[in-house]
Amino acid sequence: MKTIEWKNGKVILIDQTKLPLKEEYIETSDYLRVAEAIKILSVRGAPAIGVAAAYAVALAAAQSKAKSTPEFLDELAGAIQVIGGTRPTAVNLFWALERMKEKADANSHLAVSRLKRVLREEADVIAAEELEMSKKMGEYGAELIDDGDTILTHCNAGALATVDYGTALAVIRSAHNQGKNIHVYADETRPLLQGARLTTWELMRENIPVTLICDNMAGHFMSLGKVDKIVVGADRVAANGDVANKIGTYSVAVLAKEHNIPFYVAIPVSTIDTSIPDGSHIPIEERASHEVTGFGGSQVATAGVIVANPAFDVTPNRLITAIITDRGVIKPPYDKAIAKLFEQ
Amino acid sequence: MKTIEWKNGKVILIDQTKLPLKEEYIETSDYLRVAEAIKILSVRGAPAIGVAAAYAVALAAAQSKAKSTPEFLDELAGAIQVIGGTRPTAVNLFWALERMKEKADANSHLAVSRLKRVLREEADVIAAEELEMSKKMGEYGAELIDDGDTILTHCNAGALATVDYGTALAVIRSAHNQGKNIHVYADETRPLLQGARLTTWELMRENIPVTLICDNMAGHFMSLGKVDKIVVGADRVAANGDVANKIGTYSVAVLAKEHNIPFYVAIPVSTIDTSIPDGSHIPIEERASHEVTGFGGSQVATAGVIVANPAFDVTPNRLITAIITDRGVIKPPYDKAIAKLFEQ
Repeated sequence: MKTIEWKNGKVILIDQTKLPLKEEYIETSDYLRVAEAIKILSVRGAPAIGVAAAYAVALAAAQSKAKSTPEFLDELAGAIQVIGGTRPTAVNLFWALERMKEKADANSHLAVSRLKRVLREEADVIAAEELEMSKKMGEYGAELIDDGDTILTHCNAGALATVDYGTALAVIRSAHNQGKNIHVYADETRPLLQGARLTTWELMRENIPVTLICDNMAGHFMSLGKVDKIVVGADRVAANGDVANKIGTYSVAVLAKEHNIPFYVAIPVSTIDTSIPDGSHIPIEERASHEVTGFGGSQVATAGVIVANPAFDVTPNRLITAIITDRGVIKPPYDKAIAKLFEQ
Repeated sequence: MKTIEWKNGKVILIDQTKLPLKEEYIETSDYLRVAEAIKILSVRGAPAIGVAAAYAVALAAAQSKAKSTPEFLDELAGAIQVIGGTRPTAVNLFWALERMKEKADANSHLAVSRLKRVLREEADVIAAEELEMSKKMGEYGAELIDDGDTILTHCNAGALATVDYGTALAVIRSAHNQGKNIHVYADETRPLLQGARLTTWELMRENIPVTLICDNMAGHFMSLGKVDKIVVGADRVAANGDVANKIGTYSVAVLAKEHNIPFYVAIPVSTIDTSIPDGSHIPIEERASHEVTGFGGSQVATAGVIVANPAFDVTPNRLITAIITDRGVIKPPYDKAIAKLFEQ
């Protein structure tokens, strides 16, 4: 299942807001449509956002009517700014945009038509690399999973959050593919229910046993001894290993510590932002009230109620047993382990 | 606001499944309709369930066409069994039924018509006592609340869960009425959203500032230092102070401990079940999948997904800072404090 691809001059994205009730695809040659898809979460998950952003830049390039390379690069910078304004937390967005910009700058000696092609190819490379990273994460992570494990996951860190295969779910897929008998608890993940809608959908397609629970049930099942391991993804990891991920991740991590359950975070190295020393510097996106007060068009909460809706929280490094990356599994102290990753 | 009352031979209940969108009342002279209301959560909250059960017995008595007292008592025993089968966790249900049964037995020398009246009056006494208990809990509990506190609560332990005033919300109401400046975080409380639907509705009616959050955000706000105290209700408390309450309460208690935030439970003494030594003996109701897979009437999760839906969890006594009762605030060791309460 490809979440995102380029075909005949268009970007094709599975519309995640429609899942699991409908499997619909967005097909567009307009980069603004891709930017909107990122903003409204038709595409979501840090690695997938990065790839979508790269393809959005490639579309902006293809759309350009610029006659000269300087004019083209000017236009491109404007498009990159628009795409960068869609979501503040996932570092992969900025990482992918920066990489596309560097590619354009490094090829500013080329004619516009050649440059358009170079950017399309670079987006393809980013997508291919992401897929490769997912597979590597899966391989490294699966070594931490035992036959018979029940694994709890939060939000969707699956194929839908990447190009394919996933981050946290890559670990689960890989363990499953090795023949290990795995059962998954999927937190539904309020407010947007990525667990209920996306994680269950992905796992059920591959016959990986999954039980859906509400977020507030995770602690209960841990207390009953029914959770062996926790694996989640992340939207940004600081230089010290603090992790920003979907709201609720922090609570799961605290509960894991209370019950002495290993808590793993699976990310490609591109999700690490070494420019920030710790999690307190990660901007936390605040989203609209209606995501909490209603669902699917119907109001459930009291009219006019004040709502807080942070989309992410920060899990401090001390609560994380290990971070599974595409370059191996790292353990505390994370500041040193991460610095070493970036030396390579 | 009266949640439940007896008027002209009928029981009148606010239909909590319709709130906050509609304020509708169930008016019935049929005890089976009240039993159904308990089962489908039109009336919910341990103390309210107790009062509704008592009135259901009074209705069953009024409905009886029995010619003799033995025949009447036989019928009544059958009705009590039906009412007792509605929900397994809230001890107030069984407490109220037992009390009504004892009242009938103690008056088995009376004629049927007199006995009917005795039972109606006993239900009225139970309702009046519950209201009085709520006010007492409010008074005792408010002493634990400081001016300027932000209090987090889970589910609805308010007027709607009692006859009026509440348990946890009685504490908040009482502090507010004393002129203390209180702000409340209301956990939405999946799957049935009692926090989003009922707690916000109650508090907004009385202009007590409230912010609605998803359950999985509680830990995040605690980590930001934004929660000063936690107050919840309970459905059953064991002899050692272990507390069964709405699913998610346990997670909140673990998070409170991690952040060194006082965690209070407000209950009438009738919620304590001294017949069970600890929380492991409390039956946990498992409810239907559709409560989790749907949201406000529409299907959201993947079709056919396996769901776990325990309605309650158990918070061990070690996580509870104090239990606020209508006979004062008790502190650890709870086994001794509870034994002392029942000696009185």
